[in-house]
Amino acid sequence: MRPIQIVPLAGLPEVRPGDDLAALLLAALRGAGLRLEEGDLLVLAQKIVSKAEGRYLRLSEVEPSPEAAEIARRDGRDPRLVEAVLRESNEVIVASQRALIVEHRSGAVCAHGGVDRSNVAEGEDAVLLLPEDPDASARRLREALARESGVRPAILIADTQGRAFRRGVVGVAIGCAGVRPVVDLRGVRDRAGRPLEITQVAQADELAAAASLAMGQAAEGVPAVLIRGAPLRPGEEPARSLYRTKAEDLFRH
Amino acid sequence: MRPIQIVPLAGLPEVRPGDDLAALLLAALRGAGLRLEEGDLLVLAQKIVSKAEGRYLRLSEVEPSPEAAEIARRDGRDPRLVEAVLRESNEVIVASQRALIVEHRSGAVCAHGGVDRSNVAEGEDAVLLLPEDPDASARRLREALARESGVRPAILIADTQGRAFRRGVVGVAIGCAGVRPVVDLRGVRDRAGRPLEITQVAQADELAAAASLAMGQAAEGVPAVLIRGAPLRPGEEPARSLYRTKAEDLFRH
Repeated sequence: MRPIQIVPLAGLPEVRPGDDLAALLLAALRGAGLRLEEGDLLVLAQKIVSKAEGRYLRLSEVEPSPEAAEIARRDGRDPRLVEAVLRESNEVIVASQRALIVEHRSGAVCAHGGVDRSNVAEGEDAVLLLPEDPDASARRLREALARESGVRPAILIADTQGRAFRRGVVGVAIGCAGVRPVVDLRGVRDRAGRPLEITQVAQADELAAAASLAMGQAAEGVPAVLIRGAPLRPGEEPARSLYRTKAEDLFRH
Repeated sequence: MRPIQIVPLAGLPEVRPGDDLAALLLAALRGAGLRLEEGDLLVLAQKIVSKAEGRYLRLSEVEPSPEAAEIARRDGRDPRLVEAVLRESNEVIVASQRALIVEHRSGAVCAHGGVDRSNVAEGEDAVLLLPEDPDASARRLREALARESGVRPAILIADTQGRAFRRGVVGVAIGCAGVRPVVDLRGVRDRAGRPLEITQVAQADELAAAASLAMGQAAEGVPAVLIRGAPLRPGEEPARSLYRTKAEDLFRH
């Protein structure tokens, strides 16, 4: 098995609404002396996809609902920010001074419904929302890259999330195109010939975590990464297939 | 920033109790035409560390306690296996037909307390326990490699775990030497000069997930991986610093 390479694509400009991400990525690849190859995966930080899609919200234009005002008062939060979170969410999972964790519209459980204030260049008043439909964003980008380069790479859109039971955030997938989010090993046997006890591997989340190593979080962060040589299982399932339904989940009821 | 390389170390033999993992790893590196370099990280699957340490338990020698017998009867499990799990655990978090999730002695929340029946070559009767102290195992291996090779790589011992809210397992760190498990970014600012909202990154778990991509789960799985070129933050904290305390955790009370 050949090594897997994780290549940070430095040299992307600050992304603005309407930017052509496929063109920017191909330019960044050229700048790094690289061309897309069959089997490549591009991992994009959610923020640059949201920025290209203009997913900004001005808090000064948000009117808090009574529910948002009540959560904000009780937990010491900005009521307009809480309202923005609630609009992006199906359900509140935990609301306290320590955390505001919701089920996002997509079905993902995450802090603040993905509503983010950091690394937003549009001023103190603006927050950035997750892409409207990250799987659709990934599919569109994949097709644009195929048209412009002749190679159809797999695409992940990645975010970072905290976890139950473990400290710190890790990269996770929120949008997929051409790579199977969950690989099902049911029926696969171990070295001794017994069925494996572990039957589902979150391939897309492991890829997003690997990409996150090369992205960093801070001012010098790199928002796109090429993963080459990974033993990808292809597939067209959406990132949503990573999200446990409420009925299936052991940790909310 | 240079690419990160994830190199599967094929060619390790089936590991047996008492085996010298440092010697086996150096032989596998030589077999792959590689030498350790400063800044390298070796990630070992928990199983080969447990096997080298002889952490087998024969279920036929386990006498189930009344608590284990009751859980086993109610949930349709092997009472000896439940007893093995309870002996490895501080506390049961979820016990049902669908899952047996505990806080392991180390403080990690995981399914079955890490007690594993698959990929165990010692026969139907044997299960494999986690290493007695995975951080100590990582530190010993690091020093043995330094003695034998002149280079002191960072070491992770990795396992795979399921997650709340998301389907599928991902690689996580259960033992660390020379690499900081959680990187604290408090005080770091974003591109716009504002403090980052995300302040702790689980570097060791992202590295374990990246290694897991190259390991696979099945018969052809590779139980050790070299990660070269990652922007590692060094440190001597144990993997335990990844585990939320019960008081800190939002999803158990």
